[in-house]
Amino acid sequence: MNEEDAEEGAVAERIRLAYVLTAANRQDAIAKALDIVFEQTVELPRGTIPASLEERVVGRVEAIDPFPVEGQWKAVLSYDPADVGEDLPQLLNLAYGNISLQVGIRLVDIQLPAAMLGRLPGPGFGIEGLRRLCGAEDHRALLCVAVKPVGLSALELADLCLALAVAGIDIVKDDHGLANQPMAPFAPRVARCQEAVAKANAATGGHCRYFPNVTGPVDLLAERLALARDAGCRGVLVSPLLLGPDTVRWIAEGWDLAILAHPALAGVYFQAQHGIAPDVLLGSVFRMIGSDGVIYPNEGGRFPFARRICEEINRRLRAPLGTLRPAFPVPAGGIDAARVPYWIDQYGVDTLFLVGSSLYGQPDVERAARHLVETVRRHCDERRLESDQV
Amino acid sequence: MNEEDAEEGAVAERIRLAYVLTAANRQDAIAKALDIVFEQTVELPRGTIPASLEERVVGRVEAIDPFPVEGQWKAVLSYDPADVGEDLPQLLNLAYGNISLQVGIRLVDIQLPAAMLGRLPGPGFGIEGLRRLCGAEDHRALLCVAVKPVGLSALELADLCLALAVAGIDIVKDDHGLANQPMAPFAPRVARCQEAVAKANAATGGHCRYFPNVTGPVDLLAERLALARDAGCRGVLVSPLLLGPDTVRWIAEGWDLAILAHPALAGVYFQAQHGIAPDVLLGSVFRMIGSDGVIYPNEGGRFPFARRICEEINRRLRAPLGTLRPAFPVPAGGIDAARVPYWIDQYGVDTLFLVGSSLYGQPDVERAARHLVETVRRHCDERRLESDQV
Repeated sequence: MNEEDAEEGAVAERIRLAYVLTAANRQDAIAKALDIVFEQTVELPRGTIPASLEERVVGRVEAIDPFPVEGQWKAVLSYDPADVGEDLPQLLNLAYGNISLQVGIRLVDIQLPAAMLGRLPGPGFGIEGLRRLCGAEDHRALLCVAVKPVGLSALELADLCLALAVAGIDIVKDDHGLANQPMAPFAPRVARCQEAVAKANAATGGHCRYFPNVTGPVDLLAERLALARDAGCRGVLVSPLLLGPDTVRWIAEGWDLAILAHPALAGVYFQAQHGIAPDVLLGSVFRMIGSDGVIYPNEGGRFPFARRICEEINRRLRAPLGTLRPAFPVPAGGIDAARVPYWIDQYGVDTLFLVGSSLYGQPDVERAARHLVETVRRHCDERRLESDQV
Repeated sequence: MNEEDAEEGAVAERIRLAYVLTAANRQDAIAKALDIVFEQTVELPRGTIPASLEERVVGRVEAIDPFPVEGQWKAVLSYDPADVGEDLPQLLNLAYGNISLQVGIRLVDIQLPAAMLGRLPGPGFGIEGLRRLCGAEDHRALLCVAVKPVGLSALELADLCLALAVAGIDIVKDDHGLANQPMAPFAPRVARCQEAVAKANAATGGHCRYFPNVTGPVDLLAERLALARDAGCRGVLVSPLLLGPDTVRWIAEGWDLAILAHPALAGVYFQAQHGIAPDVLLGSVFRMIGSDGVIYPNEGGRFPFARRICEEINRRLRAPLGTLRPAFPVPAGGIDAARVPYWIDQYGVDTLFLVGSSLYGQPDVERAARHLVETVRRHCDERRLESDQV
């Protein structure tokens, strides 16, 4: 089986992992690929294990091809699903555990067998489900704003929720740094913020949703999730790398809460020649574990993401992936409210835009948010009109 | 308060985080440090938040000093403990969440206020407790071997456990890639391996301990931990970054099981000018969350760790740290059995050496392990004799 047999993002019989390897020449790239398939499975050098184990357990080097960048090679490796079993942490371990400690190995694709993919929850709501939650028609993009900063009281945060919900923002989420600090402890914050949003919805007839941050601690997680759900929240914000990806998978499977995933800590993976490609980590892994929306730093904001990377994340979140639902890309990190129509034209309407600083920089946040909502709705209406006329 | 007021590793009133910043000059370094204290707390630009919040919530830049490397600066930043509250994920978020997505920011020290440190479990057993578990006197180094490879049956792995325990190895642990695969499912593997080690101990009068790998899945974690403990295991192997650091903290607090921590996935953090320094992540963070021993890739093995880094990890694991117990450094990753005496002279006897490939490469593993045990004991006895004579 060679690389051409499997479409990227498609499903395969074996686990197929693609890496970009830094190597002086093809021979070195092959040697490096062989080292990886031993290191990630038997963790013993060739020749110290029985041939039968080598055949069954050690991964296979399926292809080594030149990569467009000088000194780099694309390697496709495949593994028996039995090397993983059913534990998600072991899948992550197989894909990148020990080799994270080496250099010049960049994971650029993950393809799972249908059965393995089918055991992962994927988005519980997905793009369609989140639209339904927020009463957002298919033709328009969604808007999200974080309530912040840390340091405000629960009542002050609730006032912000009220203003943003009245203005027509679709999802009002906790800033990901809001945990259980004394200034706004989790329980009163969630109660007050959810009340505020419900009050706004009752007044406007809208469907704004408040997603509190529920990123641990693990022994209070069930309690906090129950508290949020019982208060009427339909989703939560989670930072999968702060909490652990498998814990997010567990939330996705059992709580009937939409999950908005934050990329805190993810940046260390995004190295030029090492780590896990942003589209694979945020687009594939975060989606597989159950994120309905994945926040990432958009091009031109406070973080150095290139346009091509953003587009690749968008693609992986929305592309067919077994029976898993598509998830919303959530570009963020300093998006200028005035530029959202531009980004809608770039990324399409199946996008949830997270806008923050550029609203908080205005003298009247509610007014600024309302202006943003109206601008986006008008822009999306015009786009629909144009496409109807075509 | 300036940097000199606080000893590295000591406790402080505020959370003190040190970073090495890549910056063209001192002015740029100051600007970068200021960006960090806003980004990691209020996540809003200066001037958009009330002065009272800025004073209370935003971190302070305590010091900016030239770093021995050209174009780098050491910044000490401090934060009010109220920015974190009591949630460990929020501490990690404050230390490195969003800034992971930027460039040229390397976390090189964490100092916590006594109260915050006191809420973290630290090693439940520590160096002294693990010695007691294994019946190992103070003057000698300990030995650990992983049973592997993945692909063997529970009975085959148990045979290896028996051989290694009979040979006198102190801790026999699962390879960190052993999860719940069909070839050796968790329950029968733990039962058989623990029986084998108990049988060996009964025959030899030794105190070998078997530590199974319990790295999720989170919904089966309590069940697997209980199964291990009920079978008679006194410790477990965990990969904190595969599972989530807060989940390890939870295991450390509630299970009375020693924790051997594996560095799977950690390598992405260890960049030259970005990420978290290995000694901080493996030496401080892993110890704080409750690791009794921390595995790291030793100099000269299959992974590129320099001697200086290994020594820094050793130092942080053993140094005074509030009321937290010291933990065992566990150098690994291709240690040559024949060189263990050399490493004991380098690192001292409060070290747990994890030896693998170089034993499995021998025709008779039990014999090779016995030779290693005898060599190490003799070497440590000689060292004691020499130091008694001084």
